[in-house]
Amino acid sequence: MTIKPLTDRVLIQMEEAEETTKSGILLAGSAKEKPQVAKVIAVGPGGVVDGKDVVMTVKVGDKVITSKYSGTEIKLDGEEYTIVRQSDILAVVE
Amino acid sequence: MTIKPLTDRVLIQMEEAEETTKSGILLAGSAKEKPQVAKVIAVGPGGVVDGKDVVMTVKVGDKVITSKYSGTEIKLDGEEYTIVRQSDILAVVE
Amino acid sequence: MTIKPLTDRVLIQMEEAEETTKSGILLAGSAKEKPQVAKVIAVGPGGVVDGKDVVMTVKVGDKVITSKYSGTEIKLDGEEYTIVRQSDILAVVE
Amino acid sequence: MTIKPLTDRVLIQMEEAEETTKSGILLAGSAKEKPQVAKVIAVGPGGVVDGKDVVMTVKVGDKVITSKYSGTEIKLDGEEYTIVRQSDILAVVE
Amino acid sequence: MTIKPLTDRVLIQMEEAEETTKSGILLAGSAKEKPQVAKVIAVGPGGVVDGKDVVMTVKVGDKVITSKYSGTEIKLDGEEYTIVRQSDILAVVE
Amino acid sequence: MTIKPLTDRVLIQMEEAEETTKSGILLAGSAKEKPQVAKVIAVGPGGVVDGKDVVMTVKVGDKVITSKYSGTEIKLDGEEYTIVRQSDILAVVE
Amino acid sequence: MTIKPLTDRVLIQMEEAEETTKSGILLAGSAKEKPQVAKVIAVGPGGVVDGKDVVMTVKVGDKVITSKYSGTEIKLDGEEYTIVRQSDILAVVE
Repeated sequence: MTIKPLTDRVLIQMEEAEETTKSGILLAGSAKEKPQVAKVIAVGPGGVVDGKDVVMTVKVGDKVITSKYSGTEIKLDGEEYTIVRQSDILAVVE
Repeated sequence: MTIKPLTDRVLIQMEEAEETTKSGILLAGSAKEKPQVAKVIAVGPGGVVDGKDVVMTVKVGDKVITSKYSGTEIKLDGEEYTIVRQSDILAVVE
Repeated sequence: MTIKPLTDRVLIQMEEAEETTKSGILLAGSAKEKPQVAKVIAVGPGGVVDGKDVVMTVKVGDKVITSKYSGTEIKLDGEEYTIVRQSDILAVVE
Repeated sequence: MTIKPLTDRVLIQMEEAEETTKSGILLAGSAKEKPQVAKVIAVGPGGVVDGKDVVMTVKVGDKVITSKYSGTEIKLDGEEYTIVRQSDILAVVE
Repeated sequence: MTIKPLTDRVLIQMEEAEETTKSGILLAGSAKEKPQVAKVIAVGPGGVVDGKDVVMTVKVGDKVITSKYSGTEIKLDGEEYTIVRQSDILAVVE
Repeated sequence: MTIKPLTDRVLIQMEEAEETTKSGILLAGSAKEKPQVAKVIAVGPGGVVDGKDVVMTVKVGDKVITSKYSGTEIKLDGEEYTIVRQSDILAVVE
Repeated sequence: MTIKPLTDRVLIQMEEAEETTKSGILLAGSAKEKPQVAKVIAVGPGGVVDGKDVVMTVKVGDKVITSKYSGTEIKLDGEEYTIVRQSDILAVVE
């Protein structure tokens, strides 16, 4: 199955990231240290949302930080995703 | 009886889906694994909603994911439906 | 007495419907099976509502489904009615 | 004293109506049967309200139905009145 | 000290009014019978409020009725005043 | 350190005022009698706020009355200030 | 990793400032005396936000004061940051 977000929606999936401390030591991601980073899986086409034109700027593959608690969690084929509005994406991580 | 949604309303019906795991094993849909997918039964004509023009993009037969708790549940002829605004539809599943 | 709704208001009255199951058996409407269908008794003239022009599309005699809990219930000459905004009407049933 | 409502405000006074049943029997208005009808005592001049132009359509003497709980109750010279916005008036009763 | 309200603000002071019943008997204002009337002490210049142009229509000396609980109470030189927006003034009493 | 408010923000500092009664007797300001007067310390440049152009009308040195509880309290170099929007300033005291 | 804020978002990091009293004595920042000052780490490109054009005026390196409780706290590489909208920044400290 393929999920195609509508208008300004973006399909993201939380990363279960390994992390590296400043000193370069690799850590298995503990809850406390886990960055709030998700990967963009699919991006809606944009267009008119609530009477205003929205242009999509995030791309599939981007790593993004979102507002906590924003979006709708869904489960499909055993995988967990979240669908957020692009305006709930705060930043891109590079 | 036929239900004709007004303006930007969409009549949907939840799927009681069989599901297939990634490994291809067919599972009867348990509550935990049930995707939040509904089928579009009827689509309003669109038009001016709250002073803004809405164009309908979903079609009868589309499988869609909606925000949880959005819409009004109705029961007609023993069948359960939900009427949502098109803006409550997050994504189309193909 | 005649009730003339103002602007985008619609006067409706809940149906106490008999119902027919899919198999064609006629059932007296139990609370559980009762469809949320009301009959349109009077329709306001439309016009400017909150600075936006509203055109009325429902007609007297239409059977409609409304959002639960929307509108104001009134009682006149022993009859119960509800006055709703047209935007609270979700669908027309034919 | 005369109360002159400003802009889109309307001064109304609840009716303590006698009522007639459908069969024509006159009943003293019990609380349960009392219609929610008020008489228009004074009407504001309309004009710009929150940046939008409001034209007054109700007239002094009209019998109107209002949203429950809307408006501000006032007492003047021993009489009780309510001041509502015209948009809180749902219908005119004739 | 002089209080100069800004934009659409109006400085008012509650009246401790004597009252006359319909039969013409003068009553010292009991709490229950006290009308909600205030005197306008100063009026702001109007102008752009939240992007909309507001023209002031109340004048110093007007007796006005306001929404309950609206405005900010202030105390200056032992006198109590309230500052309200002009849109919180419901009516002028003459 | 200098605090430069952005857009329509105004930096104010509450006055710990001596007060004079109507009869001219000077009183040390008790909490009960303390007027809600603050001094303007710095004024933002105005400009576009939420898509609307705001022109600043208060000036450094003005004594102003603000809505209670509006603004953000800050402490810098041992001094307490409040940053409010100009629209939270109700009146200027002269 | 680099965090690139979107649209009108600004990435800030709270200062753990030493402070100097008015008399010039240097104090280690106690919680009570700690100014609510943050350093701007990265600034979004601005652009259309909710249908309105936003121009960014804060710059990387600015010391800013924000509304309490505004923004989303994130943790990356062991460092704590906050992402706020530019409109949550009240003032620049120089």
